Amino acid sequence: MAEPQHDAPAPIATDALIVGAGPVGLFQVFELGLLEVGAQVVDSLPHAGGQCLELYADKPIYDIPALPYCTGRELVERLQRQIAPFAARFHLGQQVSSVRRRDDASFDVGTDAGTRFVAKAIVVAGGVGSFQPRRLKVEGLERWRETQVFYRDADAVRKAAQHVVIAGAGEAAVAAALSAVASGAASITLVHRRDDFEAGIDELARLAAARARGRIAFVAGQASGIVESGGRLTGLVVTCNDGTLQTLALDVLLVLLGWSPKLGPLAEWGMALERKQVVVDTERFETSVPGIFAVGDVNVYPGKRKLIVSGFHEATLAAFAIADRVHPERAQPLLYTTTSQKLHKLLGVDPEP
Amino acid sequence: MAEPQHDAPAPIATDALIVGAGPVGLFQVFELGLLEVGAQVVDSLPHAGGQCLELYADKPIYDIPALPYCTGRELVERLQRQIAPFAARFHLGQQVSSVRRRDDASFDVGTDAGTRFVAKAIVVAGGVGSFQPRRLKVEGLERWRETQVFYRDADAVRKAAQHVVIAGAGEAAVAAALSAVASGAASITLVHRRDDFEAGIDELARLAAARARGRIAFVAGQASGIVESGGRLTGLVVTCNDGTLQTLALDVLLVLLGWSPKLGPLAEWGMALERKQVVVDTERFETSVPGIFAVGDVNVYPGKRKLIVSGFHEATLAAFAIADRVHPERAQPLLYTTTSQKLHKLLGVDPEP
Repeated sequence: MAEPQHDAPAPIATDALIVGAGPVGLFQVFELGLLEVGAQVVDSLPHAGGQCLELYADKPIYDIPALPYCTGRELVERLQRQIAPFAARFHLGQQVSSVRRRDDASFDVGTDAGTRFVAKAIVVAGGVGSFQPRRLKVEGLERWRETQVFYRDADAVRKAAQHVVIAGAGEAAVAAALSAVASGAASITLVHRRDDFEAGIDELARLAAARARGRIAFVAGQASGIVESGGRLTGLVVTCNDGTLQTLALDVLLVLLGWSPKLGPLAEWGMALERKQVVVDTERFETSVPGIFAVGDVNVYPGKRKLIVSGFHEATLAAFAIADRVHPERAQPLLYTTTSQKLHKLLGVDPEP
Repeated sequence: MAEPQHDAPAPIATDALIVGAGPVGLFQVFELGLLEVGAQVVDSLPHAGGQCLELYADKPIYDIPALPYCTGRELVERLQRQIAPFAARFHLGQQVSSVRRRDDASFDVGTDAGTRFVAKAIVVAGGVGSFQPRRLKVEGLERWRETQVFYRDADAVRKAAQHVVIAGAGEAAVAAALSAVASGAASITLVHRRDDFEAGIDELARLAAARARGRIAFVAGQASGIVESGGRLTGLVVTCNDGTLQTLALDVLLVLLGWSPKLGPLAEWGMALERKQVVVDTERFETSVPGIFAVGDVNVYPGKRKLIVSGFHEATLAAFAIADRVHPERAQPLLYTTTSQKLHKLLGVDPEP
């Protein structure tokens, strides 16, 4: 008989598991909440907001109804404020790695961070798919992932006296370099094709200062190989822009090149796909797997346009279908937030005190 | 041969005629505008905003995505701001009275105010139907409509030295009574079942003052008959709350009892209906009459919920279908307001100066 696994935490039971914390996934929490359906949210990015934050945080959006102008960041903040009454729990920086249908028609779901759920319904609000960190295309590198190669500035990196190499030139790369300074790294080297960093004004000033006093080095070039020795990754070979090779000694390599969306593991859940989009009906926005719904840019149906305004509608109708599934004993009458005291209670508001 | 009618203005040529100026009709202007489809808007109410303004101008709405809270009035103002770049022309206080298909597949449309359009497409954004003024159910009254009986406080009423009777107890009735004071009416009588008026604090104070000095009279009761004499309407018979009859002499009768929605003339346009809703598909939101689309609360399809968030989506997909109809020679690629310079130009914005 197998030993009971005392160290595995019990799975989290939830009405609905929302996969994707972009604007449509966030609004899904709201529409489910109004129907008293609880939700947990998983996203591969380390923050809520999806592509809206990842790709156009500071860019303008003009076509959200009744918001003549907002940035991606503002849209996400507004939605977070709107869904706050429902206190959905977010599981960020992890992605769903397994989905298994149970005999009772609910689902066992696991993430690559070891979080487990038992969910009565799943909503894929995956946008363009799940965001994967951009990789360095260097042979043999992947086998050091999570021991010496990291795709985020994890706590494990912060040990003092390490040789830290950082590939990237964006906000995350600059922040990681500055935080390595603070952690007392033995050496810190930024690698990127061009000496052109994007970050806040303060961070750029601190970076310039650290480079001026030799605390952070910069190498203009592209990673092209690794050096392994004694069962460890010990060096990154860089092909410099002038054609020479340079080997950077390292204990830790941070690859912070941004994120790119992939349909990823969704393709293996058994849902009918059409040109990498998940096929849904327009009444319930349910996929070909009963109990799994798909809303937002990831789905497809006749007339589909990849617009946030459509995702909001899809999440709304999906919520009614999910409520029917989760609470089959209840009717789901259409209540209005303007007039329904029940909805006011759920929202924690009291419009006529 | 018939004489040419020199006094009839030429019909207004438009790409799309939107029937209904509620929130969904307003957003329809926006989505059409992004696709370079021009629009004219007709509404039976004297103002844009539809039921949102008529029924809940100052009431809260919590379920517009990314607007955690707004009033009906605020929602309408936001949408008006958003659609301003497209300068759609509004034809208010009138309702569509005739729709005829032309040989070239466009439509001849007329309103009860005599406005005529030639439209390549029609969008019914009629909400709960068209708002009709609530009538006084008194035999023979309707034949004096627009000569001595009015359903809005029209300029024609404002002649001095008239005996004015006003049925109603809401904001419009109070405002009309005060404006009759200003116009120098010979007598002003408000008729309503209960001595209980709803209006702003200032207006109520001015009403109380005018009643105190005998300038405005109040009769508690219900209109039950009319007196006609010499080819004119000369009196309104009121059954008072105490059972007695009283006849109020009048030159002008204002019936200001609010508005109630009716499907109205829509029923005669030949569109397939289902329980008084207009049947549409979910790809184009087109009715059974090609070229006539229906969005918002007035339509029905599998899964339909009467929510503004759904109307916004419906207007979006209808816009693409209408653009295909109006500009069949053009493809309608999906552009994003965040990135498209073409859309920035249409919106009159310059995000990266």
